[in-house]
Parts: sequence; structure tokens; C-alpha cells
Amino acid sequence: MTVLMDGRKLSKKIKEQLRVRVEKLEKSAGIVPRLVVIMVGQDAASQIYVRNKQQAAKKIGIQTIDNMLPEDTKEEEILNLIYEYNEDPNIHGILVQLPLPAHINEENVTHAILPAKDVDGFHPVNMGHLFMNAPHSLPCTPRGIMELFKEYEISPKSKNVVIIGRSNIVGRPMAALMINADATVTIAHSKTLNLSKLTQQADIVIVATGQPQMLTGEDIKKDAVVIDVGMNRLPNGKLVGDVDQASIDGIASYLTPVPGGVGPMTIAMLMKQVVEFAERSVKNDC
Amino acid sequence: MTVLMDGRKLSKKIKEQLRVRVEKLEKSAGIVPRLVVIMVGQDAASQIYVRNKQQAAKKIGIQTIDNMLPEDTKEEEILNLIYEYNEDPNIHGILVQLPLPAHINEENVTHAILPAKDVDGFHPVNMGHLFMNAPHSLPCTPRGIMELFKEYEISPKSKNVVIIGRSNIVGRPMAALMINADATVTIAHSKTLNLSKLTQQADIVIVATGQPQMLTGEDIKKDAVVIDVGMNRLPNGKLVGDVDQASIDGIASYLTPVPGGVGPMTIAMLMKQVVEFAERSVKNDC
Repeated sequence: MTVLMDGRKLSKKIKEQLRVRVEKLEKSAGIVPRLVVIMVGQDAASQIYVRNKQQAAKKIGIQTIDNMLPEDTKEEEILNLIYEYNEDPNIHGILVQLPLPAHINEENVTHAILPAKDVDGFHPVNMGHLFMNAPHSLPCTPRGIMELFKEYEISPKSKNVVIIGRSNIVGRPMAALMINADATVTIAHSKTLNLSKLTQQADIVIVATGQPQMLTGEDIKKDAVVIDVGMNRLPNGKLVGDVDQASIDGIASYLTPVPGGVGPMTIAMLMKQVVEFAERSVKNDC
Repeated sequence: MTVLMDGRKLSKKIKEQLRVRVEKLEKSAGIVPRLVVIMVGQDAASQIYVRNKQQAAKKIGIQTIDNMLPEDTKEEEILNLIYEYNEDPNIHGILVQLPLPAHINEENVTHAILPAKDVDGFHPVNMGHLFMNAPHSLPCTPRGIMELFKEYEISPKSKNVVIIGRSNIVGRPMAALMINADATVTIAHSKTLNLSKLTQQADIVIVATGQPQMLTGEDIKKDAVVIDVGMNRLPNGKLVGDVDQASIDGIASYLTPVPGGVGPMTIAMLMKQVVEFAERSVKNDC
């Protein structure tokens, strides 16, 4: 029997713990965690993400400062906004919703955020610290996956972990976290040959390719743990992951469902990072 | 027959090319590349390394500014020295010879170097850029290995590469370079189980463990490429790598000898980075 790893339930539990921490922080230090959200343009998916983040923040007691900017905003204006928030001691986290319109250089913008306020963990210096096993700020999706492992008491130590996908947002930081956790890690991607042979030998498979239902029951060994980072809309409107869940069911020991697995954890981790940054700001004052 | 990859010959060729570039740079822009070397204490091995670097620099036309500091130098003094060189436009690269005495925090010191003058590529922001596939400055040993691949026309694309060792100096940056070069990369280490089974499936094995002659002919498949980063002194005084070269000979298609393989490439890459930094300083002036 395959156990479904319930990201909704765990994220709820974490958010409730965060709510208590926020309450305590306000009582003990008079500090309300503040997250700046910058969004440019009207991308429909981004609007949903941003709304979800705002709602999660509100429930926890994190104040969000929303900057919904028009499509034609200049890069310089966004940079100046970020510089201001970088300087403002009342702001603990800054989030720029991606993608940005084509005329704006995403790297310039995300790299302008002060690393200490980089809640997404996308700044090169934060990525470097993570890669060197001294993390300061972590990309939220990989961090959420590590929390799922902890909750279900699955230790990656000495396990063979195959990660499919090498993006800066998921695959690479996931690999770094797994190396740091003593797993033997293989990073596979679009140029990998004989992928199925690799995944068949893995104790843990993490799929982040954006290819609907690419991993099937034939690709894994009995009792493997399968983490599905995908979120794809089929032509018939159905939402599916990168894993063919029906054929995996009964073979894997654990599986994250889509929806309700990795997705909810990402937002919970974003919130956790904001609260941690706010807590650190108190310590730094002492 | 196993081809020995001749790092001495290739490093000589590269250093000769660098000499020409340095000559050109001086003629066209009046700039002499300048490398600051900071060494603290009297570590015997470090003294040899530093001397080798100075000699290589001299031959190429790179000027070295040597700071041989006494064992009891305070961390603050070293930091202040680095800050001065960071500001000095006539200095293109800064190198701190490791290890440092125990009372000095190596991280504080190496992270104080301006990333644009970080010839070793050890600064987190440089490591982050490398990991995110937009490298600015590269750790010298992994870079030297990539040059050997290029010279012998071995493409890592779609190859199964197993890297044994996960240090910040070799294993991790090597993994990043190989992922960026489209290889399927497995990072193994002291917590890996069934290492031999992994290496037997690899097209390329890179060993950086510091364990004398740990990889033998039984651990690799026929015609694998084997890169030996090790440099160990046996009790009988003999210098050996992490690979048992005698038993690999005849099975591997390519092998880097110890000495004379990876070692000479590391210094050549350090020199290359100094020259590149000096060349960039001209472009930045325009």
C-alpha cells in the first residue's frame, strides 16, 4: 500500500505553529513580521499565487505590503523600490513574483534583494551558502520536501536519491539539501540517457520536469519513495503531476499527491522563512 | 591501452598562451596582472605551494605581491589587509593560502575577498553563480579537470559521471560544472553504500577523497575515464593518488597520473583566472 504524503495537513500544522511564534514575537519584542510582495503585470497564475500567499500570511499574522505594479513599469523603478525596502528595518522579507514582463531582467531584480531579506532563497549568495552546506535562506519547494521527509520519518541518509530536473528553483537546491543530508545524489535531466534504468535503482525519486505523468510504475523499484513536484493542466482540464500516480500506486511506499502534496508546503515554507527572518532581526538588535 | 592524461604538458601549453595574453595586455592597455598572496605561519606544504604559484606567475608575467605573515597575526589585521587590496584598482586577484592558523576563522577571511578578485572561486556568491550555471570565477581544480576533458576531446554530455567526495573545493563545484556540461551526475561520499556498484556503471569517475589508492580496477567498467584528484604520501614516502593506478591501467580508457595529472592544471587555472580578471578590468574601464 502506498502512503500518500499529506502536504495540506502538514502545512496547516506548520502554519499554526508559525501563528503561535508570531504571537510570541509580537508580545516579547513588539515586532510584526512584514513581507513585501512585488508583482508586475496581470499574469493570471501569478495573481492566484500572490492571493494564496497573502491569505496564508494574514492567517499567521504576517503583514504583507503589496506592490501590484503595471505591466509597463521600468526595471529601474522596481530596483529603486527594492533598495528602499532593503534599507527599511521594519521589512523582514521581500518577494518578487516571477515571471516578470519580458522587458525586465529577472536576474537584476532578484539579485538586488538584500540576501538577508531574500525569502525565496534565489540570491546567488544564498544559493552558494546552501551549496557549501551552510544555508542562510532556502528555496521554499525543496525545503518543503525536506519537511515532508521529516514528518513521515524518512531519512535520506545513505539513500540513493535521483532528482529529475536541474532548475535553479527546485532541482539544484534540492540536490544540495540532499547531499547535505548525507544522501547519495544523482541529478538527471533532459540530456540524461536511460533515465528509467537510473530511477529503477533509486530509493527516492524526486521529479520536477513539468512533463505530465512522465514517471510511471515501471520506472521505479518496489517501495521507492516518490516526490512529485509537477503541476500540469491536461487538455481536458485535469490537474496532474509529473508522475503517473495511478500506475505508481501500490508500488511506491510513499507518494506526494497532486494536488495536496508538495504545493501547499511551498507556501508554508515561505511563511516560515519570513517568521525566521523577523525573529533573527530581534537577535541582531541585541 | 589506457591513455595517461598529461597535465604537465597541457598546463605548460596554457601557461605559454597566458604569457602571450599578458604581453598583449601590457602593450595594449599598459596593465600588468597583479596577484596578492597572503600566507600566515610556516606550514611546510603551504610554503611549497606558494613558491610554485610565485614561480608560475613570474614565468607568465604576473606580478605577485607577497604577504608572508607571522603565525600570531590577528584575524582583524588580515581582514584589514584584504579590504585595502579589495579597494586597490591595481590588484586583480587575491589569494589566501589555506589552511590558516587555528585562531583565525577561514570563512571570515575567504568571504572578505571581493568576489571579483576571488581567484580561488571560494566566495559563496561565486559558488552560487557556478551552481546556478552563470559562473564568474571557478575553483581551480575542477576547472583544470574540465580543461583536460577539452584537450582530450572527451565530452561529458549525457555521460554518467560519478564524483566521489563532496568538499567545497573539489567535489561540489565539480558536480556543478558537470551538471552545467549536460552530464548525468552522481555525488558519492563517505556515507554512500555500495560505492563500487555505482562506479561500475559510470562512464567517468572523479575521485577526490584523500584516501590512498581507494579506487581499483574492479570498481570501474571497461573504458571508463578516471580522474584522480588525490595526492597522498604513503608511509614509505611514495606519492600516490586516490586511485590504484596499477590495477586501473589497461581497463580505463583515460587516466590522470599522480603526479603530473590534475595537480599541474590547478596552478595553471589559478594563473588563467588572474589574467582573465586583469583583462576584465580593462573592459570595465571602458
